This record gives sequence, C-alpha cells and structure tokens, in this order.
Amino acid sequence: MSPDDQFVIGIDYGTLSGRALVVRVSDGAELGTATHDYTHAVMDETLAATGATLPPEWALQVPSDYVDVLKTAVPAAIEAAGIDPAQVIGVGTDFTASTPMPVLGDGTPLNEVAEFADRPHAYVKLWKHHAAGSQADRINALAAERDEAWLSRYGGLISSEWEFAKGLQLLEEDPELYDRMDHWVEAADWIVWQLTGSYVRNACTAGYKGIYQDGAYPSRDFLAALNPAFAGFADDKVAHEIGRLGDAAGTLSAEAAAWTGLPEGIAVAVGNVDAHVTAPAAGAVEPGQMLAIMGTSTCHVMNSDQLHDVPGMCGVVDGGIVDGLYGYEAGQSGVGDIFAWYVKNQVPARYTDAAAEAGRSIHEHLTELVRDQPVGGHGLVALDWHSGNRSVLVDHQLSGLVVGATLTTRPEEIYRALFEATAFGTRVIVEAFNESGVPVTEFIVAGGLLRNSFLMQTYSDILRMPISTIASDQGPALGSAIHAAVAAGAYPDVRAAGEVMGKVDRAVYQPDEARADAYDRLFAEYALLHDHFGRGGNDVMHRLKAMKRDAYGTTTRDSGVSDAGEREADS
Amino acid sequence: MSPDDQFVIGIDYGTLSGRALVVRVSDGAELGTATHDYTHAVMDETLAATGATLPPEWALQVPSDYVDVLKTAVPAAIEAAGIDPAQVIGVGTDFTASTPMPVLGDGTPLNEVAEFADRPHAYVKLWKHHAAGSQADRINALAAERDEAWLSRYGGLISSEWEFAKGLQLLEEDPELYDRMDHWVEAADWIVWQLTGSYVRNACTAGYKGIYQDGAYPSRDFLAALNPAFAGFADDKVAHEIGRLGDAAGTLSAEAAAWTGLPEGIAVAVGNVDAHVTAPAAGAVEPGQMLAIMGTSTCHVMNSDQLHDVPGMCGVVDGGIVDGLYGYEAGQSGVGDIFAWYVKNQVPARYTDAAAEAGRSIHEHLTELVRDQPVGGHGLVALDWHSGNRSVLVDHQLSGLVVGATLTTRPEEIYRALFEATAFGTRVIVEAFNESGVPVTEFIVAGGLLRNSFLMQTYSDILRMPISTIASDQGPALGSAIHAAVAAGAYPDVRAAGEVMGKVDRAVYQPDEARADAYDRLFAEYALLHDHFGRGGNDVMHRLKAMKRDAYGTTTRDSGVSDAGEREADS
Repeated sequence: MSPDDQFVIGIDYGTLSGRALVVRVSDGAELGTATHDYTHAVMDETLAATGATLPPEWALQVPSDYVDVLKTAVPAAIEAAGIDPAQVIGVGTDFTASTPMPVLGDGTPLNEVAEFADRPHAYVKLWKHHAAGSQADRINALAAERDEAWLSRYGGLISSEWEFAKGLQLLEEDPELYDRMDHWVEAADWIVWQLTGSYVRNACTAGYKGIYQDGAYPSRDFLAALNPAFAGFADDKVAHEIGRLGDAAGTLSAEAAAWTGLPEGIAVAVGNVDAHVTAPAAGAVEPGQMLAIMGTSTCHVMNSDQLHDVPGMCGVVDGGIVDGLYGYEAGQSGVGDIFAWYVKNQVPARYTDAAAEAGRSIHEHLTELVRDQPVGGHGLVALDWHSGNRSVLVDHQLSGLVVGATLTTRPEEIYRALFEATAFGTRVIVEAFNESGVPVTEFIVAGGLLRNSFLMQTYSDILRMPISTIASDQGPALGSAIHAAVAAGAYPDVRAAGEVMGKVDRAVYQPDEARADAYDRLFAEYALLHDHFGRGGNDVMHRLKAMKRDAYGTTTRDSGVSDAGEREADS
Repeated sequence: MSPDDQFVIGIDYGTLSGRALVVRVSDGAELGTATHDYTHAVMDETLAATGATLPPEWALQVPSDYVDVLKTAVPAAIEAAGIDPAQVIGVGTDFTASTPMPVLGDGTPLNEVAEFADRPHAYVKLWKHHAAGSQADRINALAAERDEAWLSRYGGLISSEWEFAKGLQLLEEDPELYDRMDHWVEAADWIVWQLTGSYVRNACTAGYKGIYQDGAYPSRDFLAALNPAFAGFADDKVAHEIGRLGDAAGTLSAEAAAWTGLPEGIAVAVGNVDAHVTAPAAGAVEPGQMLAIMGTSTCHVMNSDQLHDVPGMCGVVDGGIVDGLYGYEAGQSGVGDIFAWYVKNQVPARYTDAAAEAGRSIHEHLTELVRDQPVGGHGLVALDWHSGNRSVLVDHQLSGLVVGATLTTRPEEIYRALFEATAFGTRVIVEAFNESGVPVTEFIVAGGLLRNSFLMQTYSDILRMPISTIASDQGPALGSAIHAAVAAGAYPDVRAAGEVMGKVDRAVYQPDEARADAYDRLFAEYALLHDHFGRGGNDVMHRLKAMKRDAYGTTTRDSGVSDAGEREADS
C-alpha cells in the first residue's frame, strides 16, 4: 500500500461522547467521522446501577461506555469514509483527564466486579469530579510545608481533579475498595489497555496529572504524612511502565479487532490528553508555539527546550506534549462559559428576538452590534474570573468583576468587555511565559471559539501578535490520528507527522497598531484590578464566597467550580 | 366656614406634567386630583418654535405650558373633588429645580417676545439641561481657589444645573439676550408671579440653587473673575425679595382667578421645590427626621437646629425646608433608574415571560425570586454609581461596579445586589450626617420606590433603623397644599400644619437583628470598595470615562449624567 492508500483512526474521548475520525496518512485528509454518546453520560446526581443519590460535587462514568465507542463509532466512521478497514494501519486515542478508575490486575474495572457495582468509588472519577477538594488542600499544604521540589512544576497547586487527590479520597472513604484495587488507571490508558491487552501509562497524564517528575513520584514519606495507609499509593497503585507519546503501546488485540472491524495487529498509540494531542494537529510542536484550545475554558500548551518555573502554570512535563521537549500547560478557568453565562442570564428579549429574526445566534448578533465600536468606547473593564483564576493566580475563590457601567451601557458592550477580559487574561499568561525564559513566539488557536473572527481579532490586538488558527474541526481526533501514524511507523516522529498531517492557517489575524495602542491602556486597567483583587490588595472575593457558604450553612455548588481550571477546554 | 369646609389647592410641577390636588384644611384629606401634560414636554432635540436642532445636553421648556396647568388641571381637580371653588382658601405650588428662565421686568418670558422666539436661550432651562458643565467647572475651580466660604455649604460642588452656571452659559452664548433679561427667575417663582402678579423669590431655591448664604450671593469680585460681564449677575439679574416658606407671596390675581376658577384674593404661598415641600406632608419637619424621596434618584432632606458642614451634602440652607431651621439636602444620583436600567438591559426573556405570565411586573417578579435568599447568599457586592456619586463623594465621573459573579449567579441576585448597593449608599450618607453633628434620628421614605416592601425592609436592615413611609401618593402636591393652608392663616406655621395634614406611617419596617448583622459584613465590603474607587485608591472609573471620550473624539452623552445627582427625585 502507498501512503495515499493508508489510513489511521483517531479517537477523541470527550465528556459526553467519543468521536472516531478516519484520516489519510499521506496528507492528513479527514475522510469520515462518527460519534457515540455514552449511555450513562455523566453520573453526577445518582448512581445508575442503584439509583442511589450521589453526594455533591461527584461526577462518575462507566468504563464500558468507552468500549461502546470502539464498537460503534469506529465502524461508523470507516463506513462514512468509504475505505476498506484493511487500509487502516494504526489507532490513536485521547481522553479527558484526569479521569482515573480503580481496576484489578487484569484491567477489570471494580464496578464490573459484581459485589462492587453498588459502590460509587468503584466507578471512573471524571475530570470534573470535585469531591476531593479537602484531600487536595492537604496535599498542597503539606507539599508547601515540606517544600517539595515538584510543587513548583505545577505552579504551586495540585488540583483536586488529579490522580493523587482522587486516590486519597478513595482510600479515606472506601478503604476496602482501595485495598482491592490493583491499579489506579487513567481512562486514557485504560482504553489503550482494552485495545492492546497491555497496560502502558502515557507520559502526558503521568506528568501532568500523576505528579511524575524527574523519574519519580511523590515520596513514600510524603504520602505517609498525608495518611499512613497512603504511603504505598504511588509505588503500589500508580507506578507502571510509561510510554512516550507517539510510540506504540502495543498492537490491536483480536478482541479489539472484532469490536472495531479493524485489522488485528495494527499499531495502537500510547494514550494522550485531548488538549495536548491537538498540538501537532495545529502545527504547534516547535518551541515557543503556544496553542490555546479555546472552548468553555482555555487550555494553553507549549513546548520548549528549556525547563523553567513559570508562575501559575498548570504543569511542565518532560515529553508531556512531544517527546524530547518540555511541555508546558497553563489555563484560564472560564472563557466560553463566561460568554454563555452572560447571554443566558444577562441579555434581554429584544436582543434574542432580533437575533432570531436575523437568523443568527445571539453570540453573532451581539458581536455584530459591538464589533465596530472604537476600543474603550464602552468605558468598561472586566475581570474574567467567574470560574476563578487558574493561571497565573492559581486562585479558584476569585470571581467576576465588571466596572464602568452607566445608565447608557448596552448589553453588547458588557459582552465585549468580557471578551476583552479573557484576552487580557491570556496576555497575562503570555507575559508570564515571556518573563520566565520560555518566550511565546507564535499564538495558535484551536477550539470552538476560533469561529468568532471578532474575538480572534481582539486577541490579536490585545496580545500584539498574529493569531494562527487550526484548519480542522476535529483537532483532538486529528491529533490522535497523527499519533497513530507515528506509532505505525509512517513518520519518524510526531513533529514530522504533524508537519504533513497537521492543519494550520498561519497568521490569519494581524494586530492593528492603533487598536493595540488603545488596548494597552485598557490592559493597564485590567492589570491594576488583577493585582488588587488577585494578589491580596482586597480579598473581597474570598470573603464574599465565605459569606455565601455561611449564608447556606454549607459548601455551595459553587465550590465545585474551584477546580474547573484544570479541565480540558473541549472535554 | 368651619375648617371642615375649607380647602386648599396644592400644585406640583414635574418634569412632564403638572398636578393639582384638592386637600381639606382640617385633616389633610385628599378629595380630588387632576394632571395636565405639558404641550411641549421637554425640548431636548429640537426647538418647537423653529424645528431647529438643539445642541447635546440641552433641555428646555415653554413657560405657557405651566400656565395651562392652572387653566386645566386646577378646575378639573376641583370638579373631581366635588367642592365649591368658593371653599378654597389658598394655593401652594412646588416645582422642579433649578429650572430658571430669563424674563422682562413685568415677568414676560423672553421667548414670548416675538423677536426672541427663535432663540433657544430665551426659553426655560429645565433642571436636566446639562450644557453648562464647563461654566460649572469654572465656578467650582475658582471658588476652590479663592476658598469661598459658601462652597462648603454645597458639599464643595456647585452644579451645572443651578442658576449661576446656567446664567453664565446664557451670558457667554447669547449676550444680547442676557442684556435684555431683567430677571433670571426660577420657574417655581415665576408661576407664583403669574398667580399673584408680584415676584417673590422663595428661600428654598434661593439657597439651594442660587448660592444665597448668610444674606448674600457670591461677590461681584468673584463673578467678575469668572467673566467681567458677569460681575452684576447676582445684583442685577438674581437678587430680589426672598419669601419664607409657608408665607404668602401675595393673593390670587383677578387674571389667575379667571384661569383657575378660584376666588380672587385668596392666599398664594411662596414657591417651593418638589422634594423639600414634601417634608411636612411626610411628617419630616423636626430636627433629625430625614426624608428620602426615592424615585429614579434619591433626594434626602432633613432639618436641624445646628449648622454644620456635612461632607458631600448638596446644600444646607437656613429656612430651606422649614422656616427657623437649617435645611440639609443630600442625594444619590442613581437609585430607581439603576434598577430600571438593569431590568431593561440585563434580564433575559425567560424572566420577563414568567413575570408576564404571573401577571406581575418584572420588578415584582425579580423581587419575589430573591427576597427569601439569606443575606450574602448571592456572594455579590455592587457600587451604585451608574450615574456617578453625589453624596458623599461628589464625583460624577464614577461608575457602576459589580463584584462576585460566578457562572451560577442568577439575574435576580445581581438585581438584589443593586438594591443593597443603594441602601449601602444611603447608609454612608446617614453616617456622614451622624458624624457631623447633625444626627439622623428617624428615616422616612416618600416616592415611588416605597411600594417595594422588600426594598424598604432591606433599607431598614442595612440602616439598622425603622423605616417610616409617607401615607400619600401625592407627597409634593400635599406638601404644597400644606403650605397653602399656612399661607392662608389656617395654621400658625408649616410644622403645625404638617402635624395635622401630613400623613406618615411610623416605623412600618423594623430592622431584623440577624439580617442586620449579616449586612454589616457586606457593608464593610461596600465601604472598602467605596473608598478604594471613590477616594483615589484606583481612579480607573475616571480613566475609563476619559477613554470613552477619547474613543469618540468628543464628549459623549454620558457626560450629561454628570450632574444628574442634583435633580429632584420625583421631578
């Protein structure tokens, strides 16, 4: 077979569904795609097996739903592509993260052990399971107290979403299950295990979510100080062979070949995370190329050949994005979800009616109304902290702020101020990288928000940088397909494969000098407010959240937002 | 005639219409009322006589419209009351202010002089004519520079709405008209002149709007320094006999008797201002009784036997509310208009639809949704400066702020935070009086907002004071009627008449201790933000308005808001 006749499958596991994409190896052409919705979706109110109510902040999934994607979406995508399955040479996957589950030595999820099916802790803890907050607090306090070297690799904060906090919760709330668990496995690796029959941890989640740094996990000593029974967590439950991104984890098993209709024995790539896997699909694998996956939140990933501490980053992992480079990750907790909240809650009927009449979305309508207003014409500045601030402040008790409203302020003006606030937030992150010895030389956008050209132009003006955009609607699945091609040996490495199969439109948006100058004035105001409310000048946001908790005599749902910053943008 | 058979007429001149009210002298019973809309309403875009476009920020009226109220609303009110006009013993009036006009020596408005009918400056400058801003700025700068003693009587700020700024604008923009003008007369006094045939200035507008303090106006020297041609303004155009509130300015002329159908020769009270005249109608004439007229904005008036400087007050005038006491005035630039702006611009269709379905106003609907939320449960605090801040900061370049929004914040929660912000603003004012030797001992509310019981309870909780409410829907007209009764000799003075004819429900709302405690915490946050953004900690609001002006290369409409603080609440 010539490369023109060879195909790979990329499978992107999101929060509610999985998508399979058939991609041509020779040029990255996308030939067919299909999705499968998880039967159990997200269990955040009741456990499906029993109907029992789950505590607040829980979010579980059922592993067999992931396998169903292999059985349905993969054959459907092949059919849509109109190719012969025999032409497929490899499979790659990416997943939400951190999404760990307890399994037996053979990979059987504990929820599939009959006696445990009624135990919530036997299920997958989805990335947005936020019930391990107190465990994360203890991990962070102890790490800071002991000055653990790895803490700075995570911007000073281990998230409650990650493997250790969720694992400690499991131990402390269901010790019997904890004892029965042989491995605490990321879903990203479990699905590869199902495809190949063997367990390989991927370097991305091991580093970003598993606190694996410089060849080691947190020490027994540290873990024992958290809880004596937790001392062996890393050694006994987590540690396992780690595969480099782009390598093959194994080959497709006979069973998985039967599920998918693909040839037994083809390469299966090491697992990956949805944001990080997108980098080669978006032409963002060289040092200094920052990829922003902009959806409900924004995840920033960037490679560098330098290892530095960047204040407030989510993590830096050797080979975390591309083998051979340091992969940096940063994040903005709220972006598209702030715009969505605003249009749902703060835009009156005459706007939604006019949008409907004009046959456009309310987002398009508001954008049209305000895009020609001169910079600063609204007299507003906002802080984009409705979900807290991940980078660079690492403070999830922060909240939103809008200053400057008058009786003539129009809804679309506040909408625009929120746009700008998220761009200012990005600029703070870019400047933090620039000032930390890891300069950002190109800014590339993937994710649903790139379709708003006014938003993109605003980012370009505010960052004073050209904006490049991914030229695929299926960034993560394409990225997974690229990894599949590399795992299959079609390309020497991910960078080379991305060069050919990735799709990016370079410098689509160029900063306008006059607007950029005006935005500098607004950014100076943002920066003042950012530091005043974010760095201790006035901790009113913390106190307001405390009052809210006191008012209800409990933890509110809002505290669940506290770790949303870590979620992947398009999970 | 026994007092039971005696009646008085109160006439309240508002921004768009005049209202006549027939009131029984013996007990204040309101027997009939009628209104008349001004034919020319407010001329703020074009001059009716010529169709010529007016410059931005102008707001003019036509004097003959006021006379039409006498001709139509007064007879209609008498008919509605079913009384014999011969039973009427007096007439009292109140007006928006400062609403001055240029007239000849006989009281003829210059716009009625044929050759001047096409000259905008020949017309009445309504209180909300905001085109004399630069003149006011010069008056304030010069007064501060010269340390004029009267400046502190006005909280350090002479408004562009008042007589001197508007008079200086007239001089500088139409000097010929200025020269032809014999008197610069408040509409409040002009209408009394029409009723009686003689010109008497009232102590209220002379003091609050005419800078008349301790028996003198600003000096020739001061006025000459503003503009040499302005040196004689006070002496030649403004100064005139001043009548005490409650005194008779004269008796009803034959001509006015013919207009109104009332008996010639009955007493006509000295003119007054709508907010101040309401005090006796609301049982708020004793020292320490603060009356808040709460409408689009709030005007606070209070008597005291002490003369003190209260930071940020609008003015203190000897006999300005009740003869024999010092009358204090303070104000909040935006109150009801902030709520109106919010529901018009920031509340989505599902709320307006639900309100319509429930058959209640959107204000009632939002209030119902949020009234039972525990204090602080929304996690929000706002600054109520959408129209700037009159008292106590005296800064019209300030703007609104909301802090604490998250992705779970609901529209009704922000609505409530704005309610609370205006109550916090009131508390700042009350505390300023308390700390300045003019303690507030009772808080009484008049104006349209008193109908919102949740708002009233919130004020009670936040002020930690009982709230009394006026028991009349026609506070200003009732107040004018009370003054008519005193002018007619039915009562020895306004306090005595108010005692009998005024209507107040005392202490209708009582503070709840637990809520008050919780609000203290929120108020502490408000106070921190108030001082940070209002006293130089961060002048971002000023800079945002400057950017807005720069963006449009001109003064925006918003600058017109800059003096809104001085307008009367129910003008």
